[in-house]
Amino acid sequence: MAGEKIYEGKAKILYTTDDPNILLTHFKDDATAFNALKKGTIEHKGAMNCAIASHLFEYLATQNIPTHFIQQTAPDRMQVVAVKILPLEVVVRNIVAGSLCKRTGIAIGTVLKQPLVEFYYKNDDLGDPLFTEDHIALMALASPEQVAQLRQMALTINQHLQDFFLNCQLILVDFKLEFGIDAHGNLLLSDEISPDTCRLWDQTNLDPQARIMDKDRFRQDLGNVAAAYQEVMARIQAVISQKTP
Amino acid sequence: MAGEKIYEGKAKILYTTDDPNILLTHFKDDATAFNALKKGTIEHKGAMNCAIASHLFEYLATQNIPTHFIQQTAPDRMQVVAVKILPLEVVVRNIVAGSLCKRTGIAIGTVLKQPLVEFYYKNDDLGDPLFTEDHIALMALASPEQVAQLRQMALTINQHLQDFFLNCQLILVDFKLEFGIDAHGNLLLSDEISPDTCRLWDQTNLDPQARIMDKDRFRQDLGNVAAAYQEVMARIQAVISQKTP
Repeated sequence: MAGEKIYEGKAKILYTTDDPNILLTHFKDDATAFNALKKGTIEHKGAMNCAIASHLFEYLATQNIPTHFIQQTAPDRMQVVAVKILPLEVVVRNIVAGSLCKRTGIAIGTVLKQPLVEFYYKNDDLGDPLFTEDHIALMALASPEQVAQLRQMALTINQHLQDFFLNCQLILVDFKLEFGIDAHGNLLLSDEISPDTCRLWDQTNLDPQARIMDKDRFRQDLGNVAAAYQEVMARIQAVISQKTP
Repeated sequence: MAGEKIYEGKAKILYTTDDPNILLTHFKDDATAFNALKKGTIEHKGAMNCAIASHLFEYLATQNIPTHFIQQTAPDRMQVVAVKILPLEVVVRNIVAGSLCKRTGIAIGTVLKQPLVEFYYKNDDLGDPLFTEDHIALMALASPEQVAQLRQMALTINQHLQDFFLNCQLILVDFKLEFGIDAHGNLLLSDEISPDTCRLWDQTNLDPQARIMDKDRFRQDLGNVAAAYQEVMARIQAVISQKTP
């Protein structure tokens, strides 16, 4: 049962539950981009992202990644462990796209020799700026040991997600993770993993626009946004159902 | 004798000389800010910055910092060692100001517990973006060993410059350094150190605008720009003349 609303973000609402260690996440259909300068709705996005994230959290748990996921309780609702979210967005990149093109001048689609990890300060007022590890220390957002742990967890998650998505014939270009600390001090993968937070390219389609299966369709007004999310969900569910006969 | 012009930047022109290992730097009166969106001229800036940078390079040489400086050959001209400039701007900050306020939300004037070193990719087209050490490695701008050496040299230079400027009753808020590699593979402090590249606050004046003795007077249209540079030069020359009777 949803209790008190304690947080409303751009894509999700968090409610308390009877258990102080458990929260309920409601996934919204609202979509935003460019730090909420662009706003819209993607039909059934809430339910699709909730299903996708649930599958991916369950998969990562089987790979010994600690996550905040407990269970999906409704099409657009998920029970999660109550955590204190670290104010850092941890980005992992396998292929150059988005802001990395603008920062470096490297062409979109360039495959990185090794994954790149970036940290952004989760602060809408400041536009989620890039932080070095020295900025993180200066603002005391995380300890150097936590930063090293975040980096290592993000790279491990990247390997598992790349493998999983390749089974779905999807290329994991880059993605954003958030982490939280539970009542016992454990670092848990939190937030969501979905086409809102990943760049996913259809491995079977080389067309630079048609291959895009993620929120870039919304950002760039490419159309067929909900259809792309639907296709990602369908491919993930097909892979999951193969694995669990 | 100035030979062929090989480079013209926003504030300086580089000429070849008869000796391929020596270049001549001509300091211009031109001033730019905000990646050259704002342009102007500061009267006698070329000669003032050339004198200031010459004094500071000579001082740093006495502190065992290797620099590209050879000698001042005219009021606005300096002989320097020919180096290959690394495409990195190394910024050291002692007090929060400028872009660090925007990035972190920390108030201007906040004294940092320890100096902060930042690396920016020297690329006007991209707006000199902040780079992490991973971006530097990705673009192969410098080796990890060079980055460690740059950081250490920048921090050592910061200590020496803070000491020197305090003798001038000037607070070194932050500054930008560039480094180059000479024909023997040595890393040399290059470019210039001047009110164009340092934030300097008058220690004897607490007024947040009146205390500014650097290019922020030009950036923010505070007036008395040339007078501030002149005062910085006079104080440096007074300290130098005390030391060398």
